[in-house]
Amino acid sequence: MELQAYLAERIPLVDRQIDAALPSADEEPASLHGAMRHLLFPGGKRLRPAFAMAAAEAIGAPAEVALPAAVAVELVHTYSLIHDDLPCMDDDALRRGKPTVHVAYDEAVAVLAGDALLAAAFEVLAGAAKQAGAERAALAVGDVARAAGSRALVGGQVDDLSPTAQHDSAEGVESVHRRKSAALIAASIVAGARLGGADDALLERLERFGLEVGVAFQIADDVLDEDEEDACSLVRVLGRGGARARAEQLLEGALNQIAELGERAEPLRELARHAVRRDQ
Amino acid sequence: MELQAYLAERIPLVDRQIDAALPSADEEPASLHGAMRHLLFPGGKRLRPAFAMAAAEAIGAPAEVALPAAVAVELVHTYSLIHDDLPCMDDDALRRGKPTVHVAYDEAVAVLAGDALLAAAFEVLAGAAKQAGAERAALAVGDVARAAGSRALVGGQVDDLSPTAQHDSAEGVESVHRRKSAALIAASIVAGARLGGADDALLERLERFGLEVGVAFQIADDVLDEDEEDACSLVRVLGRGGARARAEQLLEGALNQIAELGERAEPLRELARHAVRRDQ
Repeated sequence: MELQAYLAERIPLVDRQIDAALPSADEEPASLHGAMRHLLFPGGKRLRPAFAMAAAEAIGAPAEVALPAAVAVELVHTYSLIHDDLPCMDDDALRRGKPTVHVAYDEAVAVLAGDALLAAAFEVLAGAAKQAGAERAALAVGDVARAAGSRALVGGQVDDLSPTAQHDSAEGVESVHRRKSAALIAASIVAGARLGGADDALLERLERFGLEVGVAFQIADDVLDEDEEDACSLVRVLGRGGARARAEQLLEGALNQIAELGERAEPLRELARHAVRRDQ
Repeated sequence: MELQAYLAERIPLVDRQIDAALPSADEEPASLHGAMRHLLFPGGKRLRPAFAMAAAEAIGAPAEVALPAAVAVELVHTYSLIHDDLPCMDDDALRRGKPTVHVAYDEAVAVLAGDALLAAAFEVLAGAAKQAGAERAALAVGDVARAAGSRALVGGQVDDLSPTAQHDSAEGVESVHRRKSAALIAASIVAGARLGGADDALLERLERFGLEVGVAFQIADDVLDEDEEDACSLVRVLGRGGARARAEQLLEGALNQIAELGERAEPLRELARHAVRRDQ
């Protein structure tokens, strides 16, 4: 299947919905609303929204039903980038070739723009009740909130910032990767499939798929990173070859989880392969 | 009615639910989980949870059905205090007589603890589906998310930080108060009543009640503040007497909104009077 064509059809839907979900950049306070959009337009690869939509389609639902999940996870991802870049965290001045939000605006606005994006994510997701039904919408809010919480994304970031011994073991590194990156990728898939009507057994398998793909995706990031001294990298623990092999092992395990889903899950599989093998 | 007795019965329920909603302070990452609890135990007056429960009771529902809203709004309020205290915002070292979170921990952990509390709020609120039904839970998520968003709490904070001309007019000051403080108080009341089963017409009236009480509450804060030079204070615009009169006017308008609710709304009214007249 042709992944690029698949994405070219669906990503514009997400972009339109993100645009519609946020106040325009000239609405007051304009600094805040500009800052909220700074990393979103133009945005990144929209990997998480693509996972959300492909997960809905993998179980036979239309991509559109997963749109609130797709938008919400991109807003959560974007908030986390803005906060990670802050001077008190990674202190990054550039992202995707342009100034980070706290550089383009200021630190207070960057903190608050991230906060507002996180709130907006749940407003959008709660709105899924209209099309997908309130029960699925409420459960999807729980999926994404847990992935954004202290036992997942935020806790992973705390441990990523803390130069502790656990970064010297593969388990320690993968624990950070699982919480900081994979949990939100898994939630993208689970929330998308949930809005599409997946039952609990299937959601459990999709969650394992998402976690394994997510960790493998982050390991692929470690492999692509030139700086092997990076504190929390599987390359530093296992070497580049070992890290690559581990990513492939995780990808294989993930694909086994959804083997039974047949042809309509092929975009979801292709996305996973692409995410993990983008260095090749 | 005896407001203190009313609160003494209900606030312990909220405290228990907040405790249950958050990982314990020794769960790893312990700095994060300790920081999340730092301003919550011991906490403040739990004014917003009290409003949520009193609103449910005002329409004839049990206080317990509003507990997820009560917990969620306290978590949102606490996150906003942590972020407001940051060096890049108000740069406060003390709150309620103890070190602020970024002083007791560090700046990164303070940002992240706030983020995690905001996510936890929506996890708790989504869980209201079990008792109150998914439709009310999903709508309550929307109520609180909007109140926490860029057109309310976060936008109000941006304008509060920005020393612009609008702080010289009563309308400008009240616009900040409405968004930064009143919106979350109104959402406490609306979400509590919504989980209790209020219809749309009643929710609209309760929202107006909450916004007016919330602005009056913030004006009472201005009146209590010794520092009249404070950038965004109605006392600076209208003088202490003028600000007090305006708060009373708002309170009266608010109470008119819920006049028809009868005796069972008396705790809600008493809370409003207490919040606005706490300087007397």
